[in-house]
Amino acid sequence: MNLINHKFELAARPVGMPKRSDWNYKQESVRNLADGELLVKILYISLDPAMRGWMNASKSYTPPVGIGETMRALALGRVLVSKNANFAVGDHVYGSLGVQEFGITNGAGIIKVDSRVAPLPVYLGALGMPGMTAYFALLDIGRPQPGQTVVVSCAAGAVGSVVGQIAKIKDCRAVGIAGGVKKCQYIVKELGFDAAIDYKTEPVVKALQNHCPKGIDVYFDNAGGDILDAALTQLARGARVVICGAISQYNNTTPSKGPSNYLSLLVNRASMTGFLVSDYASRFAEAGREMADWIAAGKLKSREDIVEGLESFPETLLKLFTGENFGKLILKLPES
Amino acid sequence: MNLINHKFELAARPVGMPKRSDWNYKQESVRNLADGELLVKILYISLDPAMRGWMNASKSYTPPVGIGETMRALALGRVLVSKNANFAVGDHVYGSLGVQEFGITNGAGIIKVDSRVAPLPVYLGALGMPGMTAYFALLDIGRPQPGQTVVVSCAAGAVGSVVGQIAKIKDCRAVGIAGGVKKCQYIVKELGFDAAIDYKTEPVVKALQNHCPKGIDVYFDNAGGDILDAALTQLARGARVVICGAISQYNNTTPSKGPSNYLSLLVNRASMTGFLVSDYASRFAEAGREMADWIAAGKLKSREDIVEGLESFPETLLKLFTGENFGKLILKLPES
Repeated sequence: MNLINHKFELAARPVGMPKRSDWNYKQESVRNLADGELLVKILYISLDPAMRGWMNASKSYTPPVGIGETMRALALGRVLVSKNANFAVGDHVYGSLGVQEFGITNGAGIIKVDSRVAPLPVYLGALGMPGMTAYFALLDIGRPQPGQTVVVSCAAGAVGSVVGQIAKIKDCRAVGIAGGVKKCQYIVKELGFDAAIDYKTEPVVKALQNHCPKGIDVYFDNAGGDILDAALTQLARGARVVICGAISQYNNTTPSKGPSNYLSLLVNRASMTGFLVSDYASRFAEAGREMADWIAAGKLKSREDIVEGLESFPETLLKLFTGENFGKLILKLPES
Repeated sequence: MNLINHKFELAARPVGMPKRSDWNYKQESVRNLADGELLVKILYISLDPAMRGWMNASKSYTPPVGIGETMRALALGRVLVSKNANFAVGDHVYGSLGVQEFGITNGAGIIKVDSRVAPLPVYLGALGMPGMTAYFALLDIGRPQPGQTVVVSCAAGAVGSVVGQIAKIKDCRAVGIAGGVKKCQYIVKELGFDAAIDYKTEPVVKALQNHCPKGIDVYFDNAGGDILDAALTQLARGARVVICGAISQYNNTTPSKGPSNYLSLLVNRASMTGFLVSDYASRFAEAGREMADWIAAGKLKSREDIVEGLESFPETLLKLFTGENFGKLILKLPES
């Protein structure tokens, strides 16, 4: 084979929202495989808020992407060539394969997925990293009890939509905070949330008072900023706040806004705990089976927002930060 | 008996630092006791940062002190008259008795203390509410393990000084943040902390890096504000942040400063948990016995900052917020 790969490399550390000039779009020949490696034709690239953090130079839970390196991304593809006994040609695989057409990997952290269980894009959403995040952060950190009230921000997003649905499966009251009428209608009418709050048009504190008369037992935060602060004012005693993300703060050019109502933790003997899904890798298979059962039973719905073509990557990524995406944001690449 | 009581009533809700005009100093006759009540001659009044919160109108973990009501305070005194079978004349008692010379109580929440075990003022400090706060918040919320690093702010204060000493008893590294050379020398030389950081003269983040090379496993916060933010930058993975107080924020006239580095909780899978000592009331006796043993063994030292005279109350209270007190701040009243 004489394959040509196209990919996006990080060209500069963005200030605020990433611009096209922060990337280099590159073309290169696909190199030969070493023993143990496999070549993957990438079909779907997962676009996630965490990618913004990986572009910063600062130390975090994972090293930053270096300038001149292929942009890191989770992706799903089909094995084209394999020199690794664990993977066969034709297998569908999911893992950190990068923003490119062809990925080469030694198989570490790469898992096989089964297109007979669910459509492939679902493995980037409810059955992928966002779904695992929702499952473990809600159940292990949030620890919701039947009858309790679970509030989630970015509720129509890839993580938030699963959080609310699992809350319902666990017999909780689920209240979602989202931006715009369409998303709010979707989470209540399609996903079965008990209530939705449109932060673009409603005062969030007052709406939380209305929809959470006994206070918030679990607040699952993907938003940060003013929405986190609003939720803190309505905590029930012993509440658990899960810090999963802070999408409102990722493109700040000034320091993050801290939650000024954090002393509500003291008044309510509440906790605020950070979460990283990678800590639960050993339990992904177990969770994936349970989530697939819920999908098969119609209890868990997955929605993808699929945009075609690798070249649109710089602009498509921004949909996450402007609130334009509706469901799990995915770049779809041609089959060949 | 024809006794005259003097007391401080709350006259106005303070804006910022409380002023003398926020109080009324009143004189009244001591009324007769009903069945079940006891009359206490107050000897020592505990001045605590939490009192500032009780003066605000806003809902909190306990109702605010009403305008015209005697200011709430923990105090220690001697029973003068008893119509309660559980208390005898001459008993020393400790509880919420108010900023006044004579307290009448039905005995609820009032405990007897033994002056043969420790000097009476110690029952307001290491063996009182501050000591119980340090004990349960550190051991139950902070959960320090041998060899871990415990950092505490307001480290020369009534709570912080006990936190650091218990950390040492539990074979941890104890680092204290305090204001001024004298307090810093005291916690290292007298109390056995491993290191002290003078936030008035040292850059706190850099000093924490120096003194906590493996990061902070338990951060016990009494300060809030910039010191909390500095500590968040140096958390170890899985760290526990105990929110016990925020003395830097209590006299704010603008909203509290939120911890802008709170996303360190996510990066480090750390938690931040609020604490109220009243939740542990059923275990005070157990903790008191262990703490008294530590005092007897010379492992736990208590320091009191005793100011004489009820009338100085409005000005003496402010020493807590200006950092002028050195040890547990106590008002001492004459014996008769």
